[in-house]
Amino acid sequence: MEKFKVTFYPDNKTIEVEKDKTILTAAISCGVYINSACGGDGVCGKCKVKVKNGKVITQPNAVLSLDEKREHIYLACLTTIHSDLEVEVPAQSRLDFEKSPLYSQSEEIESTIATVEERLEYSPLVRKIYLELSKPSPEDNISDLERLYQAILSVSDSNFNKDTKFNFLQTGLANIKQLGELLRDSDWKITVTLGVRNGATEIIMIEPGDTSGRNFGFCFDIGTTTISGQLIDLESKRVLGTKASYNKQATFGSDVITRIIYAQAEGGLEELHKAVIDTMDQMIRELIEENKVDLNDVTALLCAGNTTMMHLLLGIDPTYIRRQPYVPTANFVPTLRAAEAGININPRGLLFCLPGISSYVGGDTTAGVLSSGLNTEKDLCLLIDIGTNGEIVLGNDEFLIACAASAGPAFEGSGVGCGMRASHGAIQKVKIEQKDFKIIYTTIAGTKPRGICGSGYIDIIAEMLRLGILDKDGKIKPVEHRRFRETETGREFIIAFQEEADSIGDIVISEADIENLKRAKAAIYAATSILLRWMNFNFSQIKKIFIAGGFGTYLNAENAVRIGLLPDVERSRLIFIGNSALAGARQSFLSYGAMKEAQDIAHKMTYMDLSLENEYMDEYMAALFFPHTDLNKFPSVKI
Amino acid sequence: MEKFKVTFYPDNKTIEVEKDKTILTAAISCGVYINSACGGDGVCGKCKVKVKNGKVITQPNAVLSLDEKREHIYLACLTTIHSDLEVEVPAQSRLDFEKSPLYSQSEEIESTIATVEERLEYSPLVRKIYLELSKPSPEDNISDLERLYQAILSVSDSNFNKDTKFNFLQTGLANIKQLGELLRDSDWKITVTLGVRNGATEIIMIEPGDTSGRNFGFCFDIGTTTISGQLIDLESKRVLGTKASYNKQATFGSDVITRIIYAQAEGGLEELHKAVIDTMDQMIRELIEENKVDLNDVTALLCAGNTTMMHLLLGIDPTYIRRQPYVPTANFVPTLRAAEAGININPRGLLFCLPGISSYVGGDTTAGVLSSGLNTEKDLCLLIDIGTNGEIVLGNDEFLIACAASAGPAFEGSGVGCGMRASHGAIQKVKIEQKDFKIIYTTIAGTKPRGICGSGYIDIIAEMLRLGILDKDGKIKPVEHRRFRETETGREFIIAFQEEADSIGDIVISEADIENLKRAKAAIYAATSILLRWMNFNFSQIKKIFIAGGFGTYLNAENAVRIGLLPDVERSRLIFIGNSALAGARQSFLSYGAMKEAQDIAHKMTYMDLSLENEYMDEYMAALFFPHTDLNKFPSVKI
Repeated sequence: MEKFKVTFYPDNKTIEVEKDKTILTAAISCGVYINSACGGDGVCGKCKVKVKNGKVITQPNAVLSLDEKREHIYLACLTTIHSDLEVEVPAQSRLDFEKSPLYSQSEEIESTIATVEERLEYSPLVRKIYLELSKPSPEDNISDLERLYQAILSVSDSNFNKDTKFNFLQTGLANIKQLGELLRDSDWKITVTLGVRNGATEIIMIEPGDTSGRNFGFCFDIGTTTISGQLIDLESKRVLGTKASYNKQATFGSDVITRIIYAQAEGGLEELHKAVIDTMDQMIRELIEENKVDLNDVTALLCAGNTTMMHLLLGIDPTYIRRQPYVPTANFVPTLRAAEAGININPRGLLFCLPGISSYVGGDTTAGVLSSGLNTEKDLCLLIDIGTNGEIVLGNDEFLIACAASAGPAFEGSGVGCGMRASHGAIQKVKIEQKDFKIIYTTIAGTKPRGICGSGYIDIIAEMLRLGILDKDGKIKPVEHRRFRETETGREFIIAFQEEADSIGDIVISEADIENLKRAKAAIYAATSILLRWMNFNFSQIKKIFIAGGFGTYLNAENAVRIGLLPDVERSRLIFIGNSALAGARQSFLSYGAMKEAQDIAHKMTYMDLSLENEYMDEYMAALFFPHTDLNKFPSVKI
Repeated sequence: MEKFKVTFYPDNKTIEVEKDKTILTAAISCGVYINSACGGDGVCGKCKVKVKNGKVITQPNAVLSLDEKREHIYLACLTTIHSDLEVEVPAQSRLDFEKSPLYSQSEEIESTIATVEERLEYSPLVRKIYLELSKPSPEDNISDLERLYQAILSVSDSNFNKDTKFNFLQTGLANIKQLGELLRDSDWKITVTLGVRNGATEIIMIEPGDTSGRNFGFCFDIGTTTISGQLIDLESKRVLGTKASYNKQATFGSDVITRIIYAQAEGGLEELHKAVIDTMDQMIRELIEENKVDLNDVTALLCAGNTTMMHLLLGIDPTYIRRQPYVPTANFVPTLRAAEAGININPRGLLFCLPGISSYVGGDTTAGVLSSGLNTEKDLCLLIDIGTNGEIVLGNDEFLIACAASAGPAFEGSGVGCGMRASHGAIQKVKIEQKDFKIIYTTIAGTKPRGICGSGYIDIIAEMLRLGILDKDGKIKPVEHRRFRETETGREFIIAFQEEADSIGDIVISEADIENLKRAKAAIYAATSILLRWMNFNFSQIKKIFIAGGFGTYLNAENAVRIGLLPDVERSRLIFIGNSALAGARQSFLSYGAMKEAQDIAHKMTYMDLSLENEYMDEYMAALFFPHTDLNKFPSVKI
C-alpha cells in the first residue's frame, strides 16, 4: 500500500498514512483534533482545512462556498490523500483553539455553592493520615501489617465521618511487599492514603514521613461538548484551579447518538476513549504544573457525566444505550483504579464515578441535584441544566423525576459561527441601543472580544427582539446599516468589528446561528413543559428554578425568559447556579455524606422518556418561536 | 566475559553461562533443581554432580570421599565452570527425582477429618451461581450491572452462610466492559463467580450459560521441605487429587534461616519466589490434566504455610523475621488475586492465605489447630506438628499457646541418606526379627522399596533399640552380619538389599542418618516439654495429643514413644492426624465459618519464643538420647 506524509500546520505535526485515507483520519492519528459535529458525514461543515501543497480527491458537498473552494479549502472528512500533503488547520476548525483559558465562576455562584457545602460534613473520599506507629518489641511483636491496621483503626478524628469508619481494610500486594523496609527506614513514621472502595477502605499508598499535607484530587464534569476539571486540595478543601476545554471527542460527532454510532465501528470505541482521556490528561497536566503539584500526590479523581460520556470514559461499549429498551451497561460504576481507565495520576489512585439514572440522564444530573439542594427542598423545584444534552429535574425532598432533551451545543458556543466557551474574551453581556445600533458589551476578564458565549447570545437575541430587528421566527430584518450584512447563507448582524476584536474577522450573529440557538431553547423549554404537564403541575407552583449550564458566568434572567428559554415566572424564582455538575462532583469528593446523598438521589430519581411522549414534538414545534407561538405563556414579555 | 555451554543430564538441558560461575548457579538458571541443604556453603554434601567432560576448578571440602573424587564427582556449589561442560546430576542430588507420586492419606485419618468437617457449614470462599436474569423492558430498565447486582443480592440459598451475605459487591472494569454484550448473547442466562474479599464480595468472573458445576480450587500446605497440594471440586466438595512434592526452594537451603539469608542476596528473593511458584505450578498442571479440569475453571487457591514460606510465596522480603524483635511483615494477608503472586490459574482467580501467628508459627499451625479441633476441646490438648519447622500448640477452647522448634527435614525423608517422602515405594512399617536380623517391611502402595519415609525410620530405630543393636546415643553396634557395614563415615545397617529394591544401591540407615533423626526428635520433644513446663502442666494432664506431619500415612505410636519423639503417655491419647495443615486449609476453603474460626484461632494464639528460654538448650541436650537421658520420663520403655 502506497504511503504519504501529511504535515499539519500550525502544529507542524507529520504523519505517514496510507493512500485514500481521509485528512480527518490522518489528523486524528497524529493528535490534531479537528471539529466534526456530524462525525465525518460531510454535512456539518466544521472540519474545513486548507490544503497548501499536494494532491487530494474530494467529494461534492453543499457546505463549501465558491470562494472557499477557490482558496483550496476542503472538508477534512470528505477529502482523501493522494500525495504528500501540507495542511493548514484554521482556528475555527480546531477543537483546542483556545489554549486552556481559565474558567472562573462568579463570586455570587461560588457563594451559593459554599452554602450547600456547609450542610455537608468534610470527609473526603480519599484521605491521607500521618501515623507514628509504636515500634515492635519482644512484648509487642505483631506483624507490620497488623500494626499498621491497628493504628489506622484507632484513629479517632472528628473529621472522619462515621460512615467511613474503616471496618474493612484492604491493600494490594505491592504495598505489603515494600512495607517492612519502608516502616524501618522511616522510623515507623508514615503517611497512609486511604480510599473508600465499595464498602471497604483501601490502603492506596504508604509513604515515609508526613506527607498528609499533600493530597490532591481532580473532579471532572464530562460533557458531550465541554469538559470541566478542577484541581482540589483534599486537605484544605480549596479549589486550586479550574479549567474547561472542548471534549476532543467532538471530532467524532457533536451529540451522544453520533458518538455511539461511531463507537460501534471497528476501533471506534478505543478512539473515543482515547480522545476523552487526552482531553482530561492535558487539563490534569496543566493544572498540576501551574499549581506545582506532583502527579504522585494526585490520589483520586471523581467524574460526573452523562451516561454515554461515562461509558466512553471507561471504554464500555455504549451500543445498548440507544437500542430498545435503552439500557446502559452501568449506572452505578464501582470504584476503580484510575489506571484501569487509562487515566494517569498516582498509579494506585482511585476513580470515582457519580451514579447516573438512565441511558440519557447521567451522573452530571445527580451532581446538579446535589449541589442545587433540590432534593432537600420542601417545596416543588425545578433544575434545568442547559447543555448539549439538556436535563430537567422536577421534585423536592419527596420525589424526583427527570427527563432529557437533545439541545445541541449552541449554548456552549459550539455549532454557532462565532461561538466560544465562557472563557477569556467571550462576549458575555450585551446591550444594544436603539440609536445607531450602538452595542455595549462586556467580555469575560475584560479583554478584547474573541467570540460570543451562551449568555452573550441570549442577550443579543433578546435585545434584537426588543429593538424589532429580529422576527419572532428568527429572521433578521433587512436594515440598511453597516452592522447588517447579507451573505450567501442569509443575513447576519455584526456585534464587534474585527478592528475592535481579537479575532480573524468580525464577530457576528447569523440567521443560521439564531436557528441553532432557537432549536436549543425550544428543546429545553418543551422538555420542561412536558415534564410538568405529565406530573400535573404548572409553572406557578414551582418555588425555585435552578438554572445550570456552561453558557457563562452570568445569566440575564429577563432575557432568558424573553427568548423563551426559561418559563415566564417571577424572576426572583430563577436561580442561576452555573456548572452545578462540577460543584456536585466536588461536594461528593469532599464529603462521603454527600456521596451517599448522591447515591440516594440516583436511586430515588425516576426517568421519563420524552421519545415515548407524542406531545413532545408538538410542544417543541410550538416553542420554535421567540418566545413561543402561544404568547399567553409569556405574559410579561412585551412584543 | 567468556561464556561456556553447560549441559545437564539426564535433563539434557543446556545453558550458556559466564566463566567462574558455579555449576549450582548454572543448574538453577536452566531449571534443574539440585538439592542444597546448606544453601551453597559446601557443607551439606547434597549437591553432588558428576562432571563427564570439561574443565572445572573446585574448592577443598570434607564431604566428598576419595572414591567420589576419583569418579569426577564434585559439589556443584563449590565448583566453577572453566570450559564447556557436560554434567550428570544423580538422582539423589535432585529435588524432583520422584515424578509426582500420589500421596494418599489413610482412610482412618480421612475419617477423623470428615468428622471435623461435619461441624462446619458448607460455604466455600469462592462460589459459582447460575442466574437467569429478567430481561429489561421500558418498565424495567435499570442498567445491566444493577440488574446483575440485584439478582445476586436476591439469591437465597441455604448453602450460603449468612456471614458471606453479599453486602458489598465489587467488580473490576474488565468484567463491566464485556457485560452488555455477554448478557445479550447469553440470553440473560449467566454464571457469576463470587469470592469473599476482605469484607466485600467480588464478582470474579461472569460467564455465559450455566457453568456452576465447574468450579475448582487448590489448597496448598507450603512447607519448608515439602509442598502438598489438593485439587478440590468446590461444588461437590470432593477432593479430586492430592500431590506432594519437595519444595524447589530446597536448592537454596534446607531450613527457613538459610532461605531468609539467601533472600537478602541480590536477586535471591526473586529466585526463591520463582522456585515455590514453579513447584506449585507443576502440581497444578498435573492435577488439572489428570482430572480433565480447565485452568480457567480454577477460580481460587488457599495456602497455608509457615511465615517465611508465605513471605517467599508472595515475594515479600522475609529479612525482619530473623531480626530482633522477630516481626514478620504480614501474618494476616489480605485476599489477593493469584496473578499478583505470579500463580497461574484463572487470571482473575483469588489467593487466600491462612493467617499466621508470629515469625516462626504460621498459617499451617492455624490450619492444624482448626482441623484437629483442639480449639473446641474442653480438656487440655496438645498438637505436635512434626516438620522441618516443628510446631507445638497447647490449649483448649479457652487458650492457645504455641512454640516452634527447628527440627530439620529428616522425618520428611530429606537430609537422610535413603530418605524419601511418604509416597509409592517408601518403606513405612518395619519389623526386625532377632533371628538373623530378618526384616519385614511394608511399602506405600506395596511396590518394591525405593527408600525410607519418616514412619519407617521411627520403626527402624525403635526396632534396633529393642534388639540392642543400637546404643541409646545412636551408635550402631559392631555386629558381624551381612546387614552391618563399616564405611568411611561410620557404620550402617542395611534395610533392603539392592536386588530386592528399586534403588541405585542398598537401602540403609547410617549413623549419620540416626544422628539427624535424633536431633529432630530431640528438638520436638524438648520444645513440647518446655512449653508444658512454662505453663505449669505435665503430660498426665493432657487429654489428647494430636500428632501431625508428613512422615507417612501411618505412625506406630509405641515406637514413636520408644525413640523419645513422643511423650510416654497412655497410647490411646496419641492421635495421628496426618497432614493437618492441608486438611485445615481445605476446611477453610470450603467453609467461610471455618475461615472465620481460623482467624479467631490466629488472633487467640500466643507465641512463646523458645530462643528466649535458657532451659530449652538444656532440655534439648538431655533429649539427645534414645529415648532420653532421664529414663523416669519414659517409664513404659523397657531398656
